[in-house]
Amino acid sequence: MRVRKIRGAFEELVTYDQVFVVDPASKKGKWHEVFGNDHDIHAEFGGGKGRFIIEMAKRHPNVNFIMVDVITEVILKAAQRADKVKLPNLKMIMIDLREVDAFFEANELSRIYLNFSDPWPKKKHYKRRLTYRDFMKKYQVVLKDEGWIHFKTDNKALFEFSLNEFCALDMIMKHIALDLHAQNDSDNIMTEYEEKFSSKGFHIYRVEAKFRN
Amino acid sequence: MRVRKIRGAFEELVTYDQVFVVDPASKKGKWHEVFGNDHDIHAEFGGGKGRFIIEMAKRHPNVNFIMVDVITEVILKAAQRADKVKLPNLKMIMIDLREVDAFFEANELSRIYLNFSDPWPKKKHYKRRLTYRDFMKKYQVVLKDEGWIHFKTDNKALFEFSLNEFCALDMIMKHIALDLHAQNDSDNIMTEYEEKFSSKGFHIYRVEAKFRN
Repeated sequence: MRVRKIRGAFEELVTYDQVFVVDPASKKGKWHEVFGNDHDIHAEFGGGKGRFIIEMAKRHPNVNFIMVDVITEVILKAAQRADKVKLPNLKMIMIDLREVDAFFEANELSRIYLNFSDPWPKKKHYKRRLTYRDFMKKYQVVLKDEGWIHFKTDNKALFEFSLNEFCALDMIMKHIALDLHAQNDSDNIMTEYEEKFSSKGFHIYRVEAKFRN
Repeated sequence: MRVRKIRGAFEELVTYDQVFVVDPASKKGKWHEVFGNDHDIHAEFGGGKGRFIIEMAKRHPNVNFIMVDVITEVILKAAQRADKVKLPNLKMIMIDLREVDAFFEANELSRIYLNFSDPWPKKKHYKRRLTYRDFMKKYQVVLKDEGWIHFKTDNKALFEFSLNEFCALDMIMKHIALDLHAQNDSDNIMTEYEEKFSSKGFHIYRVEAKFRN
């Protein structure tokens, strides 16, 4: 997504200290202490403006949610939104996913959501796609053995790439959808992108994948 | 496909006895004798008018090909075409694929092609789709352990259904394509359907799948 630079964004972000965790490296292995309970932790990698994760946190009070993004202005927007609803089961952090295992202990996460990740359409940029196998191998570390990755996109080429990455990693897959909205699933929470693109007639692709341990 | 009934079609079909094998049950376990060599045998299940398999047989003289279909008029058309080129490595048979293991011995086939199978779009008809798990389990019997199934279709719903069936059977998959012709693969031989549909702008879907033995 295109993001306008905001002066003082980070300074403002840290003021939302109920939802934004400024020092996530220090929480590695201690996220259950941060939430103050033993509920499962689900993370969204590349959470954007937070609409999906905020709605998930509302609907599932017995699950802890962590939104991860790398762009200050984007997380600021998400934190402003989250601040209006004050959900104790939602935290946000700003990290580079290439280093995700510096912020979560092995098996600390029960599920990972990847929603409308940047497709990086140029062939030479495939290693930047969040479903590229080197990213996935990091996710495997922090994800529980029985944890699933839920991946959703409107980008056909990214979906094709991702399915092939998952196959190359010999992952288990289920619930593959090439036109998600044809299924009328009331449990599906739409992200900003999803609403925008599906309203334009684009199909939404989705799959759940799990590592074979 | 819609097929016009032709009076005397079967009587004509049996005259093409160089390519059409009238008594395939008697060849079970003996297909290498039929071809007179030990080359691998690749079968196309639902071969239609034969364009794909005839071109394959031309390009790969060291592979034996068997086209399978269930509709007399369709095989007649394919046999007429094949008769013009007289390929010793191509045979055609008329069988019901629900009984495929009555016509091939276990491990007798090295590869199976499924091209543009009838999508049976009505939900209640899903058991008729040639990638339905009960069909697949029969294919598993006649296919060698290392044999792959190559599946191609223009039908998004059938492709989605098939990927999920393959996942449910815990198959290994590779080379998933959601827009095959975007890849400019010169090895891709187009079927009649493929040319017709892709020329109308429909995408072609493709995957290779193998049983985990």
